[in-house]
Amino acid sequence: MAVKIFGHQNPDTDTITSAIVLADIETKLGNDVVAARLGELNGETQYALDHFGVEAPGLIAGVGEGDEVILVDHNEFQQSAENIGQANILKVVDHHRIANFQTEGPLYYRAEPVGCTATILHKIYKEKDLEISREMAGLMLSAIISDTLLFKSPTTTDEDVEAARALQETAGVDPDEYGVEMLKAGASTKDKSAEALLTGDAKTFEMGPKTTRIAQVNVIDVDEVLERKTELTEAIQKEIDAEGYDLFVLVITNILESNSSVIALGTDAGVVEQAFDVSLDEDTAFLEGVVSRKKQVVPNITKALG
Amino acid sequence: MAVKIFGHQNPDTDTITSAIVLADIETKLGNDVVAARLGELNGETQYALDHFGVEAPGLIAGVGEGDEVILVDHNEFQQSAENIGQANILKVVDHHRIANFQTEGPLYYRAEPVGCTATILHKIYKEKDLEISREMAGLMLSAIISDTLLFKSPTTTDEDVEAARALQETAGVDPDEYGVEMLKAGASTKDKSAEALLTGDAKTFEMGPKTTRIAQVNVIDVDEVLERKTELTEAIQKEIDAEGYDLFVLVITNILESNSSVIALGTDAGVVEQAFDVSLDEDTAFLEGVVSRKKQVVPNITKALG
Repeated sequence: MAVKIFGHQNPDTDTITSAIVLADIETKLGNDVVAARLGELNGETQYALDHFGVEAPGLIAGVGEGDEVILVDHNEFQQSAENIGQANILKVVDHHRIANFQTEGPLYYRAEPVGCTATILHKIYKEKDLEISREMAGLMLSAIISDTLLFKSPTTTDEDVEAARALQETAGVDPDEYGVEMLKAGASTKDKSAEALLTGDAKTFEMGPKTTRIAQVNVIDVDEVLERKTELTEAIQKEIDAEGYDLFVLVITNILESNSSVIALGTDAGVVEQAFDVSLDEDTAFLEGVVSRKKQVVPNITKALG
Repeated sequence: MAVKIFGHQNPDTDTITSAIVLADIETKLGNDVVAARLGELNGETQYALDHFGVEAPGLIAGVGEGDEVILVDHNEFQQSAENIGQANILKVVDHHRIANFQTEGPLYYRAEPVGCTATILHKIYKEKDLEISREMAGLMLSAIISDTLLFKSPTTTDEDVEAARALQETAGVDPDEYGVEMLKAGASTKDKSAEALLTGDAKTFEMGPKTTRIAQVNVIDVDEVLERKTELTEAIQKEIDAEGYDLFVLVITNILESNSSVIALGTDAGVVEQAFDVSLDEDTAFLEGVVSRKKQVVPNITKALG
């Protein structure tokens, strides 16, 4: 049976494209693999796939005991496929911290502290001396633009910028022009339910004894979301009641102006004030310069909870 | 402050030499690092260092909060330096399973399922196009010989053999001749106390709710060890009482004949029978063809305990 390659739940552009791109690499190396995804595509990812004429990976719910799998763009089990603990994880390619991850045997693990999984995949093409098609170049470039918010996120490294520069010619697009269109395609919230906004790009983090859920929405118009605060607050409270989160933070990021507003609820909501040195006004605060969940939101909240 | 590079507690040849060799690589790349070790050298490692005229890394007991460190040849916190959870782990180069390991932020992690960390380090020299000195070649070759028991362990991969072949000329030794002498240097147990035999190369594994301690002694004469069974049994029982292990397995491996005898004690000692389809006779069993803790002992016991 082919080895399944997939990224995290609530897939974003890097997770979807990295599964496709690593499947291309493994196939070129003679391995029997298939890309998969753990959830619905967002508008941004759909735009990227459509633009480069690439099909979405097949949807899977979980994995079976002993299934051979490769993880991209994540490692924490609670962000992965159902029953991931029973699978045989052969390889991981990721750019996140390592936590709540373990295997029974040795494996390939390639992590680098760069802004995007695609940047590592681009390096692997080079190391293995494999050809990069226009489609794969386009998907990697899309992932880098998405994860770095057009190189403006503090997670952006020189290697991400270099990889994007190297890929743009093969992809045949201008990163700025294409990038703004792609980000906009995922930035409209009008046709999304409150539930969709809370689950579209949400991750759960175990921080010591506390469980924190952090959802992020990238927008061009923050007020479009904040106007729906009553509806969102109710939906967040429902998730807290159902899942027992100690803290739920909805991060509404203005991708063009590079800052965020947050709605924080839960018994530990107060730590957000300490984490970012702000005051919550009716559960809401403005975070100047904050755009990265990984580099800014998670470390600050982890520290404040510790 | 220089970044400390170190391997696991109860250091073996791969752990000591990998710290030295990765320090050489990082230094050549312009980074400020220093190799360290978490315990006394065994006779085999001392032989290798003496042969190639390389000094042992400095001994450290633990690390301090926020210390920047790089781990080689291990990742599980209980095998690492004291207070490792408070350090800032920048990088890991390893060839073991991943477990009981986590970081707050993203990092470099390079793991491959090969027989020896040195095989990965050799690859890094090649990828970065760095020169390998006679000393570093000799240490990497020694580590490969040690971890693969002169290429006879089932952990040996083609890549280990290729790396050794590529290194032998630069190192200026014949692997078989040098290897047997090096292995013998660590194989005499006569002048070692029971405590030394139990702690010389011992690792603790969390297997579900159970804690298993597995010590390994590489010898040329198994009877030399088994004759001291009463003394060893008492010392093992003392460790079990002090540390609360559910299972303690002493693996006595005949490195020339490629098999092992085990002494198993603890409330879960019975699982060894199931794990290897043998009967314990007065806490002892012979395991035909078993030489690898990582590839044979740990997985079989983990499964039997599951």
